[in-house]
Amino acid sequence: MRRTLGSCYYPEHWPEEIWAEDARRMAEAGLTWVRIGEFAWSRLEATPGHLTWDWLDRAIGTLGGAGLKVVLGTPTATPPRWMLDRHPDMLAIDEKGRPRGFGSRRHYDFSHAGYREEARRIARLLAERYGRNPHVHAWQIDNEYGCHYTTLSWSEAARQGFRDWLAQKYQSPDALNRAWGNVFWSMDYATFDEIDLPNLTVTEANPAHRLDFHRYASAQVTLFNRAQVEEIRKLSDRPILHNYMGRETSFDHWQVGRDLDAASWDSYPIGFLSDRLENTPERKARFLRQGDPDNQAFHHDLYRGVGGMGAGRYTPGGRFWIMEQQPGPVNWAPWNPAPLPGMARLWAWEAFAHGAEAVLYFRWRQAPFAQEQMHAGLLRPDSAPAPALAEARQVADEIAGMPEAGCAPGDVALVFDYESCWAWDIQPQGADFDGFRLAMSAYRACRRAGLNVDIVPPDIADLSPWPMVLAPGVMILSGPLRAALSSYTGRALLGPRTDVKTPDFAIPVPLGPRLEGVTSVLTESLPPDASEPLEAGGAFRHWREWLEGEARVYERTTDGRAAIMGADHLRYLAGWPDDDAFHRIVSDLAREAGLHPVDLPDGLRLRDTETHRFLLNYNPEPVTWDGVTIAAAGVHWTPR
Amino acid sequence: MRRTLGSCYYPEHWPEEIWAEDARRMAEAGLTWVRIGEFAWSRLEATPGHLTWDWLDRAIGTLGGAGLKVVLGTPTATPPRWMLDRHPDMLAIDEKGRPRGFGSRRHYDFSHAGYREEARRIARLLAERYGRNPHVHAWQIDNEYGCHYTTLSWSEAARQGFRDWLAQKYQSPDALNRAWGNVFWSMDYATFDEIDLPNLTVTEANPAHRLDFHRYASAQVTLFNRAQVEEIRKLSDRPILHNYMGRETSFDHWQVGRDLDAASWDSYPIGFLSDRLENTPERKARFLRQGDPDNQAFHHDLYRGVGGMGAGRYTPGGRFWIMEQQPGPVNWAPWNPAPLPGMARLWAWEAFAHGAEAVLYFRWRQAPFAQEQMHAGLLRPDSAPAPALAEARQVADEIAGMPEAGCAPGDVALVFDYESCWAWDIQPQGADFDGFRLAMSAYRACRRAGLNVDIVPPDIADLSPWPMVLAPGVMILSGPLRAALSSYTGRALLGPRTDVKTPDFAIPVPLGPRLEGVTSVLTESLPPDASEPLEAGGAFRHWREWLEGEARVYERTTDGRAAIMGADHLRYLAGWPDDDAFHRIVSDLAREAGLHPVDLPDGLRLRDTETHRFLLNYNPEPVTWDGVTIAAAGVHWTPR
Amino acid sequence: MRRTLGSCYYPEHWPEEIWAEDARRMAEAGLTWVRIGEFAWSRLEATPGHLTWDWLDRAIGTLGGAGLKVVLGTPTATPPRWMLDRHPDMLAIDEKGRPRGFGSRRHYDFSHAGYREEARRIARLLAERYGRNPHVHAWQIDNEYGCHYTTLSWSEAARQGFRDWLAQKYQSPDALNRAWGNVFWSMDYATFDEIDLPNLTVTEANPAHRLDFHRYASAQVTLFNRAQVEEIRKLSDRPILHNYMGRETSFDHWQVGRDLDAASWDSYPIGFLSDRLENTPERKARFLRQGDPDNQAFHHDLYRGVGGMGAGRYTPGGRFWIMEQQPGPVNWAPWNPAPLPGMARLWAWEAFAHGAEAVLYFRWRQAPFAQEQMHAGLLRPDSAPAPALAEARQVADEIAGMPEAGCAPGDVALVFDYESCWAWDIQPQGADFDGFRLAMSAYRACRRAGLNVDIVPPDIADLSPWPMVLAPGVMILSGPLRAALSSYTGRALLGPRTDVKTPDFAIPVPLGPRLEGVTSVLTESLPPDASEPLEAGGAFRHWREWLEGEARVYERTTDGRAAIMGADHLRYLAGWPDDDAFHRIVSDLAREAGLHPVDLPDGLRLRDTETHRFLLNYNPEPVTWDGVTIAAAGVHWTPR
Repeated sequence: MRRTLGSCYYPEHWPEEIWAEDARRMAEAGLTWVRIGEFAWSRLEATPGHLTWDWLDRAIGTLGGAGLKVVLGTPTATPPRWMLDRHPDMLAIDEKGRPRGFGSRRHYDFSHAGYREEARRIARLLAERYGRNPHVHAWQIDNEYGCHYTTLSWSEAARQGFRDWLAQKYQSPDALNRAWGNVFWSMDYATFDEIDLPNLTVTEANPAHRLDFHRYASAQVTLFNRAQVEEIRKLSDRPILHNYMGRETSFDHWQVGRDLDAASWDSYPIGFLSDRLENTPERKARFLRQGDPDNQAFHHDLYRGVGGMGAGRYTPGGRFWIMEQQPGPVNWAPWNPAPLPGMARLWAWEAFAHGAEAVLYFRWRQAPFAQEQMHAGLLRPDSAPAPALAEARQVADEIAGMPEAGCAPGDVALVFDYESCWAWDIQPQGADFDGFRLAMSAYRACRRAGLNVDIVPPDIADLSPWPMVLAPGVMILSGPLRAALSSYTGRALLGPRTDVKTPDFAIPVPLGPRLEGVTSVLTESLPPDASEPLEAGGAFRHWREWLEGEARVYERTTDGRAAIMGADHLRYLAGWPDDDAFHRIVSDLAREAGLHPVDLPDGLRLRDTETHRFLLNYNPEPVTWDGVTIAAAGVHWTPR
Repeated sequence: MRRTLGSCYYPEHWPEEIWAEDARRMAEAGLTWVRIGEFAWSRLEATPGHLTWDWLDRAIGTLGGAGLKVVLGTPTATPPRWMLDRHPDMLAIDEKGRPRGFGSRRHYDFSHAGYREEARRIARLLAERYGRNPHVHAWQIDNEYGCHYTTLSWSEAARQGFRDWLAQKYQSPDALNRAWGNVFWSMDYATFDEIDLPNLTVTEANPAHRLDFHRYASAQVTLFNRAQVEEIRKLSDRPILHNYMGRETSFDHWQVGRDLDAASWDSYPIGFLSDRLENTPERKARFLRQGDPDNQAFHHDLYRGVGGMGAGRYTPGGRFWIMEQQPGPVNWAPWNPAPLPGMARLWAWEAFAHGAEAVLYFRWRQAPFAQEQMHAGLLRPDSAPAPALAEARQVADEIAGMPEAGCAPGDVALVFDYESCWAWDIQPQGADFDGFRLAMSAYRACRRAGLNVDIVPPDIADLSPWPMVLAPGVMILSGPLRAALSSYTGRALLGPRTDVKTPDFAIPVPLGPRLEGVTSVLTESLPPDASEPLEAGGAFRHWREWLEGEARVYERTTDGRAAIMGADHLRYLAGWPDDDAFHRIVSDLAREAGLHPVDLPDGLRLRDTETHRFLLNYNPEPVTWDGVTIAAAGVHWTPR
Repeated sequence: MRRTLGSCYYPEHWPEEIWAEDARRMAEAGLTWVRIGEFAWSRLEATPGHLTWDWLDRAIGTLGGAGLKVVLGTPTATPPRWMLDRHPDMLAIDEKGRPRGFGSRRHYDFSHAGYREEARRIARLLAERYGRNPHVHAWQIDNEYGCHYTTLSWSEAARQGFRDWLAQKYQSPDALNRAWGNVFWSMDYATFDEIDLPNLTVTEANPAHRLDFHRYASAQVTLFNRAQVEEIRKLSDRPILHNYMGRETSFDHWQVGRDLDAASWDSYPIGFLSDRLENTPERKARFLRQGDPDNQAFHHDLYRGVGGMGAGRYTPGGRFWIMEQQPGPVNWAPWNPAPLPGMARLWAWEAFAHGAEAVLYFRWRQAPFAQEQMHAGLLRPDSAPAPALAEARQVADEIAGMPEAGCAPGDVALVFDYESCWAWDIQPQGADFDGFRLAMSAYRACRRAGLNVDIVPPDIADLSPWPMVLAPGVMILSGPLRAALSSYTGRALLGPRTDVKTPDFAIPVPLGPRLEGVTSVLTESLPPDASEPLEAGGAFRHWREWLEGEARVYERTTDGRAAIMGADHLRYLAGWPDDDAFHRIVSDLAREAGLHPVDLPDGLRLRDTETHRFLLNYNPEPVTWDGVTIAAAGVHWTPR
């Protein structure tokens, strides 16, 4: 696998006179890819039906002529103003009932059939014109699905669509009433037309009602994406991607991934640290200019997995890109410090070490106008080099000196399930219970132990490639996963909160988990300052279950209850361990599985490819480990 | 008075095949009461006008046949979906103007005449069928009035109703303008039809406008409840109750209580500690699995008082129940830990020691579906015993070994006024001034001193039963209370913020309080970290008044101002004492009143009945006091 | 300049029988001014078109007869209820789309042409009747523009007005699209009628869109005010004022000031400390009963500047009043403690030392009814003296013993720009970046150094009167200011975040600031607990820029970057210094400028007039400085 760099570019933002020089400088910086077009609808079709291709023709020609490969985006995240005159009801409606208007982006409702056809139309038109263009080497559909909380819309289109979806699923209102347990508060429906969206209720709506609505909404994202893919596939054989986001769990990426050739994601380590990840104030201060040492890696492993869905089911070694890589201060986090010198290089190598095919910095030149004018680029607004440009050039040189290589085989499979994230959002039971956060806790434990992780979907059917499996917070064990676990010969650890619901969002009877000799009989959540100590050290935080049964107890809390219980190949974890305990638990299990876990210093992380071991130092000072000293923000690699 | 236990039951949630076994197990657990029916409307009347009684007939028969006494609830908190087709405008409107829709519960507006008639109708139908049923021994009207902030609705029905109410009260717009002081900002009205509800104004609406609206809204709750009571009274001579909530001050319970035979309330000690009571983080951690040691007792004393209103005026020794008692982790607080072993017993004995006739655990079996699926019961979802079942059985056995007994005579009368709570919500003047919180401060001081408290209404006319009276934060002294105080021979302490407003929510001139030789001339509120030290120890927090006058000064702040002032039998407290100071003040006064206050250790509380003294240890470790060691979560009783 | 005292009065609130006695007591207290009328519309015009003047005639006669001078307010902040029947669409609409209804005050939309004419009409009627009245010595237009967030309204009237305003400004949609950079996210408009207000968008609207809307809204305030001024000017030659608020940056006061003869503002030191100023908890506790030692002075200097705009351009030594001065506890802050004894005097002297012509206490008598019933006055509700009355009398006596004198010449000109405040609100880039807060930081540094500050507008053309100039956070250097700086011979310090945008809210290319040899090439914001240390001591907080260029570096951060850079007469500050660093930087610069900065103890402040130096002690204990001991809340003056 060849490693490549790239950048976005918006020819419509700049005078045509400078396109060629920009292209030349991109090539000079060692970039391979240039992504264009994804917000340009108003310049492609200024009035309905009148397409203006010439400028885009010339832009692609200029860029391609400089040796760059073009990723062409469909502009459906930014429909022009006239689209609202055609489809006045295409706007999403927020949870409080207010339309989400024109004037920024993503002002459309995934349920709106009319707009979906418009999106299909513009995708087809682009594919007709550029499907065989020699410079267009890849496609991007839309931009950042789910951004700005746009997966869920509480519109009339959604209401009608949801009713149809429910009718298809349940066939009769009585079946729905039974599945949801509507008898509970006399919430029974006599017809599907009586069912509203689960917002603006007096108190919480039925969680089953909410989960089905979330499933419906996620399915609309898949369908919206598929409509465009279908058009482009007819006319182009180039790979089709979408650029996913970090910690975006509002729709099922595994499903969208089935229709695409590779995954990509937009990586903003610094903004995420301050705004979207749980961390202590001390860690937020320590990694202020570097980002959380595990966040990027988690998403690389996740989207490598999503990229492996192209065949319609999961295959290890999926393809993924970084479609947007932070190069300097951004504009959208509460605070936006500059990266530590070296981070634009380190982040790229972290991505490559996890198997990324391409890392595209966002953006080429800082735009001096509009919403993102404070977002840094590889160039300053005045076209002078910004600090990251030289780091990109350095990475390009380093790539050239390295062999092409895929990832090392994974040590651990971590099951990640979007539906569970929705479920725990709907019914957290403890205010800080979050599916992503729990998965990240498990991931962090593995990463501190130096293990290579593959993140896999909840319907995975074959676990044999991995010595070890973790499945925290997976509300329902799918049939394939249950079967795979039953014959698994490595070390699998389920829980907490795994296999404890039915597909109808009810508690199963008999109680879960359906593990031999293990039953979770009571659940409690704990406030942030409370914990349940473990005999072996550390403690459970946030969440704890009481287990009963005949199975072996591997570990206990100090009050004598089982903390880990089960059998050699398949065990259940009764709570949410703190970082130290989770590391210990994972390391012990890894040793049983024949792996060789380590205990990396805080901020130092490692990752193996087929050919090399990479050490990445997220700390603001040098770290020495295993006889090697790695500079602040440094990357070190050795052949394996 | 016989002490009894019970539970809710929802036959409509379970297969009929298991009803008999459930009933048998209830009886076996020592339960007397089973409450049913209160959310079952959609199964009683699935389509308008077609009543389905057979299943309820059989359920009552089965339960009664097992020796259980049925409490039958009216299902008016959960009107079925078809009700909205009949009455599309029956939904409450939230303060921001949005309808509060179907899909959970309490989706009705107390002002809506049409729905009130529907509620009357279903109550009448139930009474016609079960009014003389030998197994139905009590009635519950609706469920948890005010829950989910439903007392106030900003609907068209409320607007029209409020205008009529105002016209009745004031007779002319000029009279209303004068009463409200509408001249202040040119807010005069020319007709009653010009008056809107006091929401969505540019800045705060006139507090007199808001207070009248709150009075109106509270009156609608009384009328709604009364409509159903009237129907049932015609056809049944069994007692009629409502299950009130904790810290629910949005309507005047004293008024609703006039129409009922006994009070009951729903007690969730752990959820309250974390979510609805002011406490330091240290106390929240200490009592995480036990609840605040004074919260349950406060509400027992309050609702025993409300239960004493059945004759239309307050009588000591009112009847009350615990209609719902937390048995394990619940689902609705931010965090939901399991109770310490023993608490399900302790809470029951705290209630009995305060005069409760019955304690019904909520719920019998944890429901595996819908909104409350994470709420524990006496049984697990799989029907196995949950931890509280054995504790309930223990309580049943202990009851059997104890004599029937009422409460000991009260040491202290604490005046509690709902209207004042509304007033201080509307115009707190200091952000953390809250009527309930102030009353709880006074109550906590009494309880730490080991005093038995009766909570009494603001129009009480006879204080002679009590050696001591406290009236904190009572905005207006009613005529009867003023008269009672003028001839009082015990020790009464008014204030702070007592007798300082007119009924029109204005400052009286001459200034209050209308106490001989005491005038409150200036008011100040203090942020949480500020205080005014008292010469005798401790300090005022939150609130302080400057007093003037010729009366005797009993205590001063260190800046030399009067802290307590008045005469031997009637004094005024100029501020909100911290816990230590309040305990000292109450204890000193109690000694003057001939009582024998103590200073109980934190978490240990006592309560006297006619025959016994109960010591209850809310601490997570044993406590020794007065020569007795009480286990963690333990209860100890001795004959008096 | 003669110093005077005064008070508001609301004859319509009180029985006519007591007016004469009130007037007598005002005069006896040493008051000169009495402000009346500003909320009395419903009593002047109870039904449309029927004016009732007699009571106001008599009130003015009574007050004037007692020797008082009347300030007559126009009542346009409180239109009567019938006005809504005439103009149902006159209400402002909040950002979420909800009308802001009747029932308090300021329930009008500045964009509404119909209401603007009503305001003009009532102003004309008042001027016709009282324009030559011998007792009416000044006018106040409306009351506290912008209060309760009323500058911005998202109404249909605003939408139509904004479209017209944009059409006037840009002449063509294409020009607007270019100016705003609408190409960015396909936000182009084909006609002005497609442009909506920038609320309720999916994510942030274009900042240029938002800034233009804010400019439009600010202009409506100016026009609304001007309409009334025009009417009164025709019929009266008395000065016309408006009473501005503290920290109210929602409209451009410099522009409104052009139409008025003097400025005035409403000073509530204690409420501001707790609710509207950034301070550490320790400082909030220390100055709980005194207010921030620099806040009042800042606003005095600001409004003296605004008062100097009457000629249409800035002139030093403008006229200003305190139209409302807190006398005791107020009602509107989260907590409302009583002032330390002496503060009602100190605040008055602080104002006079800054050049105030008049200080009017608000209010004369505490109103016992309606929204502000907990707001103290000079009299209690029962007409007994409140504590501030004696302090006012003391000030009156002290005035009598002092010579009339203007302000000392300013040491420092501080440029303050409202438009920049809007810009940084719209695009803070760091969550705690606020234009007012930054200006206050600079001001505090000057004041601790004992410097006399003049606050000047951003289009100031002559800086020669000042030895020193500060211009922090001024987004665009105006042509006049740029010219003045280019020939400036004192010491000018621009930045941070100065001269870094174009008028279209874009980043200029070449990059700002347009200073010889200084370019700001990268911007970063820092969370509250992060900082960038300075070599000379202290640190940058919140905000830091990376500078490049050939100019001299005067100071560096410890990472070696330029912290101050430029030339002797004109330098740029690359970050937001903490208080100590800012004081050091200002003091060093002041010494270079030939001034004699000091380092005043915390809470002690000084201010010079033409004849005296005033020392004001905001501390709750005495302070000794420069050989003089000033009592707690004390004022000390010495001839210069």
